[in-house]
Amino acid sequence: MVIEERLKELRDKINEKVPAGITVSQVEFEGPELAIYTDDPKRFADEADLIRILARDLRKRIVIRPTILEEPEKAVNDIKSVVPEGAGITDIFFDADTGEVLIEAEKPGVVIGKNGATLREITKAIGWTPKVVRTPPIESTTVKQVRQFMRSVNDERKDFLRTIGRRIHREITNKDQWVRVTTLGCCREVGRAAFLLSTPESKVLIDCGEKPDNNNNGTPYLYVPEIHPLSQLDAVVLTHAHLDHCALIPLLYKYGYEGPVYSTPPTRDLASMLQLDYLEVIRKEDKKIPYTSADVKSYLKHSIVLNYGSVTDIAPDIKLTFHNAGHILGSAIAHFHLGDGLYNIAFTGDFNYGKSRLFNPAVSTFPRLEALFMESTYGGANDMQPARKDAEEKLYETVNKVLERSGKVIIPAFAVGRSQEVMLALEEGMRLGKIPNVKIYLDGMIKEATAIHTTYPEYLNSDLRNLIFREGLNPFLAECFVQVDSNELREKVVLGDPCVIITTSGMMNGGPVMEYLHNLAGDEKNALVFVGYQADGTLGRRIQKGWREVPLGRRETIVINLEIVTVDGFSGHSDRRQLMNFVGHVQPHPEKIFTIHGDENKTIDLASSIYKRYHIETHSPMNLETYRMI
Amino acid sequence: MVIEERLKELRDKINEKVPAGITVSQVEFEGPELAIYTDDPKRFADEADLIRILARDLRKRIVIRPTILEEPEKAVNDIKSVVPEGAGITDIFFDADTGEVLIEAEKPGVVIGKNGATLREITKAIGWTPKVVRTPPIESTTVKQVRQFMRSVNDERKDFLRTIGRRIHREITNKDQWVRVTTLGCCREVGRAAFLLSTPESKVLIDCGEKPDNNNNGTPYLYVPEIHPLSQLDAVVLTHAHLDHCALIPLLYKYGYEGPVYSTPPTRDLASMLQLDYLEVIRKEDKKIPYTSADVKSYLKHSIVLNYGSVTDIAPDIKLTFHNAGHILGSAIAHFHLGDGLYNIAFTGDFNYGKSRLFNPAVSTFPRLEALFMESTYGGANDMQPARKDAEEKLYETVNKVLERSGKVIIPAFAVGRSQEVMLALEEGMRLGKIPNVKIYLDGMIKEATAIHTTYPEYLNSDLRNLIFREGLNPFLAECFVQVDSNELREKVVLGDPCVIITTSGMMNGGPVMEYLHNLAGDEKNALVFVGYQADGTLGRRIQKGWREVPLGRRETIVINLEIVTVDGFSGHSDRRQLMNFVGHVQPHPEKIFTIHGDENKTIDLASSIYKRYHIETHSPMNLETYRMI
Repeated sequence: MVIEERLKELRDKINEKVPAGITVSQVEFEGPELAIYTDDPKRFADEADLIRILARDLRKRIVIRPTILEEPEKAVNDIKSVVPEGAGITDIFFDADTGEVLIEAEKPGVVIGKNGATLREITKAIGWTPKVVRTPPIESTTVKQVRQFMRSVNDERKDFLRTIGRRIHREITNKDQWVRVTTLGCCREVGRAAFLLSTPESKVLIDCGEKPDNNNNGTPYLYVPEIHPLSQLDAVVLTHAHLDHCALIPLLYKYGYEGPVYSTPPTRDLASMLQLDYLEVIRKEDKKIPYTSADVKSYLKHSIVLNYGSVTDIAPDIKLTFHNAGHILGSAIAHFHLGDGLYNIAFTGDFNYGKSRLFNPAVSTFPRLEALFMESTYGGANDMQPARKDAEEKLYETVNKVLERSGKVIIPAFAVGRSQEVMLALEEGMRLGKIPNVKIYLDGMIKEATAIHTTYPEYLNSDLRNLIFREGLNPFLAECFVQVDSNELREKVVLGDPCVIITTSGMMNGGPVMEYLHNLAGDEKNALVFVGYQADGTLGRRIQKGWREVPLGRRETIVINLEIVTVDGFSGHSDRRQLMNFVGHVQPHPEKIFTIHGDENKTIDLASSIYKRYHIETHSPMNLETYRMI
Repeated sequence: MVIEERLKELRDKINEKVPAGITVSQVEFEGPELAIYTDDPKRFADEADLIRILARDLRKRIVIRPTILEEPEKAVNDIKSVVPEGAGITDIFFDADTGEVLIEAEKPGVVIGKNGATLREITKAIGWTPKVVRTPPIESTTVKQVRQFMRSVNDERKDFLRTIGRRIHREITNKDQWVRVTTLGCCREVGRAAFLLSTPESKVLIDCGEKPDNNNNGTPYLYVPEIHPLSQLDAVVLTHAHLDHCALIPLLYKYGYEGPVYSTPPTRDLASMLQLDYLEVIRKEDKKIPYTSADVKSYLKHSIVLNYGSVTDIAPDIKLTFHNAGHILGSAIAHFHLGDGLYNIAFTGDFNYGKSRLFNPAVSTFPRLEALFMESTYGGANDMQPARKDAEEKLYETVNKVLERSGKVIIPAFAVGRSQEVMLALEEGMRLGKIPNVKIYLDGMIKEATAIHTTYPEYLNSDLRNLIFREGLNPFLAECFVQVDSNELREKVVLGDPCVIITTSGMMNGGPVMEYLHNLAGDEKNALVFVGYQADGTLGRRIQKGWREVPLGRRETIVINLEIVTVDGFSGHSDRRQLMNFVGHVQPHPEKIFTIHGDENKTIDLASSIYKRYHIETHSPMNLETYRMI
């Protein structure tokens, strides 16, 4: 009733502003967007400012949908008949959510045509709005599978988005005004991130991760009444794809959640990849499996992707905007605007305030900001990391030394983030002659993760983008990189020439790195180089601490003769200095800061140091607390 | 299953300890108690230490129930045939909860007989355990009605207590250990007290009051998910009977709560009286009625009364003990022992750390104490109250002055607490010749409230008890007190001789005081004497501030010519100095103190002053927060 009236009112306003001759056939909430259906999508698109003006005046995210969309099968033929053969079309993906058709081609210019002529022809022929991108240089199986899956659930998605759209735009009934945050995990500890943001009207869960090596079951406190029933959650917001933030999102669907998960597009793809791998690892370890791949599919089906900077209604009184966090591909600081100017709160997720080879530093300017939940992984007074440049020099030195003595370098690394950073450093090292040209073998999910990086070049920093697009030099495609995808090749690597091996898992709790360690640990010419944090209780930590005999499975023992090197400085996190600088620079200055995602002493030390230096109210919350923001 | 095994185990242990010849026919959890049914209740009772030893070894509250209880109707006849006529039996009340029969008599000694001979005869005859009390000198309609009602729901109670008993003694399943308190009202404000104490296993609500003169609906935040479903609450604990703590307890039953409400016996009686009156006032004001008298009955049916000092299991991991709070009749500090020595937390409710005419000062020694939630009504730096003696002197002076000029003194006062304090002061003043002997008229519920006081002499302080029982001087029965219970008498009072009128409501927002004001305000010989706090927004506050024309209903206006006097110092609350002293004296010293139940600036000031003086961690929480205790 009420929602129909709102839609009618919106439709009337739109009709007032649309030039005569353009027909608006329908207006509908679809997920966070207001979809305007028209018989004349092209004419709508030609009125360059029209959408912007409507968005501003209606305060909604506007999308234009053609009333009639051609059947995808037929549309593919039409596109292929219009576009010249030489374009090298590699994929055509219809996104019913947006009414867009994504055309991947080796030569995007040919698809666009002179002054966009070919593109206009396509639009006329098929109704769908064509969007042309360059074919990613490395094909990602994950991206392909996600797209296929999304295509297969088109109709369900349509219904889902309308339901969510109407829920988001429901009438506000409660007259109270308050904003609360409940900590369900990740306080005075690293792992199982889960924060509940609630108002009298709405509830949003930020992240839902697991905690590795936890004596309990490693899940956030999902059993407390605050988030039940899950069906009444308005939204889940995912800051980035690491497992300590995303692993248990499918579990929410198993337990009855039916709403959307908002993330950036790369986060969605990486998260589903890592979740499936997570299930695989658990299965191999004979542990209890928390959910199945069907639940990962439920997550994908309910995912809504947003790019950085897009201000989006996710509940009647909550607007979400993602900002670059600089941590891994697609990682975001989630900024929430609550009520009509009532309150603003941001959750940094994991963030890097330094520039890395892959990403720009985290964003530190927001339109408004009253409260900030920030990570404190390196929040301790002495948690200073070497500069990236020094870290790379040390890596080069180590590689040179080991290769010179005809050894092999094993680098255990997370598939997402750290691996790509190290790859880029090594590739440049070789290109500029700082280290010898040897093969760099990639084992585990690293290649797939790299492929996802090349699918989303707009999420990489401008230097890297320029290198790839302007200078035509994609370092990820360098000849030195060789994917290891069989036991035969793995054996060859072990027995072969001096080389570098980057492989998962990053903390040596399983994964192909174990195979390499097994075969190469005995030879003191080799080296094991740690480039990432080794958590307590992991094999990596033990070796790093000096264990010289470690168990492999239940029966065998590996004797560690190879050299152990730790290269600090490749972290995707801000170090203590950067955390303090971030707080100093963040605009506007928040009234309250909550230090989370760090060991107890680090969160407390950071909170107290921020208070002393900046006189901002700080808290180092415990799990299971609720703080009133306003 | 599991509970049956526990009961069997307990029964075996009991049988081991019971001397041969005493039969234990059944063992059952009934509410918080372990009921031992025996065919030989008297022999059980004769073994003086047996119950104490069982209680200590089994760590349970033990009650002995005769297997066979005589029908109450028949038992009444048996009692009357055994007890000599001259005993003056006024009431016989069978309490199926306890298996006790309460015999009220004007001469209790006659019922007991020489060395308890008559009592033993009664026991033999009827099975019920007789308890003899002196007939209260003023009959309380409330007490009578509550007893009648409880008798009428005997069978339901029996079922209810068994259900609750089994719930309390259920097995603990969750392995996590934490203790949280959620603030649902009464933070940085006075009114709508409601605190949720929760562990992984259990949830307890402390108080459920309303906030007078609230722009919102005046209820605590009962709509947040933390306390839902209400059916899963283990217990409600009521600290005392004032409406800002007890008014909305019946609402919980309307909304689906089915568990027990723990309070002291006088609190139960006073609370039901005030709740019914509360409904009456709302009805008269044509406001929305939150619940009906049927819900008050539900509350009574589910009430479980505990005396001060009785350590009681109320959930598998929570023990409750009430301690005297010195605030009003039956008011208690609620002390919770959590887990097996895990944590201890006390809620003061409203408390008076000074001695008053009616009560001893609040208890400040506990077996263990880690956290304290304390009221801060007079927590501001300047909230010093005059000594009780000075307050009484000022009251006497005022009364003398007004009577001398042939005026009348109107004292608006709360029915419960303040009225009785003022009555005792005035009675003594007359008895000792400090003020003239005039009539003191009592209007509103004051007499009924006084009657409830005389029903529970063990809840009054020792001086007053001695005065009544040893010296035979019950000041409440003094001839000066005259109950006004008709419009005719009210008119006579208005037109009659100089006198004192103590009447409700205490803040002049309704009640018979309005009638007196209407008739007596015009004459400057009269005086209006405030002895209690006048909240913002009440008529009392306006007049106190100096308004000289106040509205009566919608049409009339009252012109205020009579003298306005405020006598501070009769408060049932600790003043600032007493609050600070309480914290200084409380044994053991808690690790954390939360200041609640006070205006924002007072709770903050008190918290910061306690921290400065005693170096105890303090918080001045906001409503809707959750604090982790451990």
